[in-house]
Amino acid sequence: MSTYTTEIDVRFRDIDAMGHVNNAVYATYIEQARTTYFRDVLDADISALATVLASLSIDFQRPVELTDGTVTVEIELADIGSSSVTMTHEIRTGGEVVAEAEATLVSLDPDSGEPAPIPDEHRSTIESYHGI
Amino acid sequence: MSTYTTEIDVRFRDIDAMGHVNNAVYATYIEQARTTYFRDVLDADISALATVLASLSIDFQRPVELTDGTVTVEIELADIGSSSVTMTHEIRTGGEVVAEAEATLVSLDPDSGEPAPIPDEHRSTIESYHGI
Amino acid sequence: MSTYTTEIDVRFRDIDAMGHVNNAVYATYIEQARTTYFRDVLDADISALATVLASLSIDFQRPVELTDGTVTVEIELADIGSSSVTMTHEIRTGGEVVAEAEATLVSLDPDSGEPAPIPDEHRSTIESYHGI
Amino acid sequence: MSTYTTEIDVRFRDIDAMGHVNNAVYATYIEQARTTYFRDVLDADISALATVLASLSIDFQRPVELTDGTVTVEIELADIGSSSVTMTHEIRTGGEVVAEAEATLVSLDPDSGEPAPIPDEHRSTIESYHGI
Repeated sequence: MSTYTTEIDVRFRDIDAMGHVNNAVYATYIEQARTTYFRDVLDADISALATVLASLSIDFQRPVELTDGTVTVEIELADIGSSSVTMTHEIRTGGEVVAEAEATLVSLDPDSGEPAPIPDEHRSTIESYHGI
Repeated sequence: MSTYTTEIDVRFRDIDAMGHVNNAVYATYIEQARTTYFRDVLDADISALATVLASLSIDFQRPVELTDGTVTVEIELADIGSSSVTMTHEIRTGGEVVAEAEATLVSLDPDSGEPAPIPDEHRSTIESYHGI
Repeated sequence: MSTYTTEIDVRFRDIDAMGHVNNAVYATYIEQARTTYFRDVLDADISALATVLASLSIDFQRPVELTDGTVTVEIELADIGSSSVTMTHEIRTGGEVVAEAEATLVSLDPDSGEPAPIPDEHRSTIESYHGI
Repeated sequence: MSTYTTEIDVRFRDIDAMGHVNNAVYATYIEQARTTYFRDVLDADISALATVLASLSIDFQRPVELTDGTVTVEIELADIGSSSVTMTHEIRTGGEVVAEAEATLVSLDPDSGEPAPIPDEHRSTIESYHGI
């Protein structure tokens, strides 16, 4: 089972008045990991694809600080349906899990905006990458 | 059962390359509603309180565009435990629900950073506000 | 000489680790004022117009805090050329000037991406609004 | 004359509805370069220092897109006074200059919040680094 891993630099702007990475920025980290996953695994530009985020849930386990420097996001495939993909994420810093998250993406028909089958070449590439 | 409602202006910067409010910005809208809830209901500055977001889940139902102008966030109390509060949120625009979300906040001991009982005056104000 | 004025709510997410509105957020406030200026004065959607920001300069005079609640942005016309407009901005909170800024926007030909004359109806509306 | 150079990954969230890196994000890139400059050159945590940004000006020369992947920020010292430092910045991608910026930072007395002399060890390190 292959896991996609990417590293993201923590920016000063990611920190909020509490002195920690703001909760909304975790959604940005997960999105950024998804963006490089699309680029690296699917050779696709996420901006050009008709996909939409249907749901996102995050469990926050430890605050992240600027001095942590980087976070690592690991993506695993939880489920792939006819028109949707669910991915789980571990966010780590210094080897420690700081958050876990699950996101469901839906493939859309670009004309109607309605759910549409995941393109076959994407499905087979995703399944092959994750060893299904 | 009283519901807390606040209105938030959609900013140009909230929109991403897809032309819709970015998913992470929903977390910011929910946080902003929480911020004014603390100010309006608890007469408290959220930056000064030792609370931490333990979990957040969002179901996205319809994209929001810049021309929608504003979103309304409604907060209801789902559960109040000894040291944690779970709130549910409806985000609406033009009277239509665009997203639903649930967030669990944990009260901390400011010295140890460990979970601590919700201060009595906050508990009673929250319960009274929501008609429990 | 008419001045365009708009009010923007300060969000918790606008505050950085220093406890003040982050410097980059001033650029967002100025952009948001420009967005509502385009909507209110020109009846135009800024996302649909072929304009680009050529330069931006900001003098920061006083920090803004979450408890300030809102900022007011005032836009005045400094110069209108054949293909560019320069606007000056005062950002205020509680009646006090907290920053001054100047921004130059350039009108583009949507096909070539090269500078192009400001559309006549926009020029006349801008000049008329600002009493030139 | 030594130049400080750092590389910053472009995030999907940095892109706005126009499909380019948003203007306010340039201020964030410049701030992030300043943050790593403080860490790498001064061995200092920018959040812990009593400094404030007094002014920022940016000339935008070419849009940056997500597919550009990274930007490089180069910092040069333009002027160092008793309590202020002015730095110039070149932002590049693919070897091409996309923006130039100037920022003036002021050292503050942490108690009074008034301008205060730059600490001697910081002054000598900055001057030495930039070969003055």
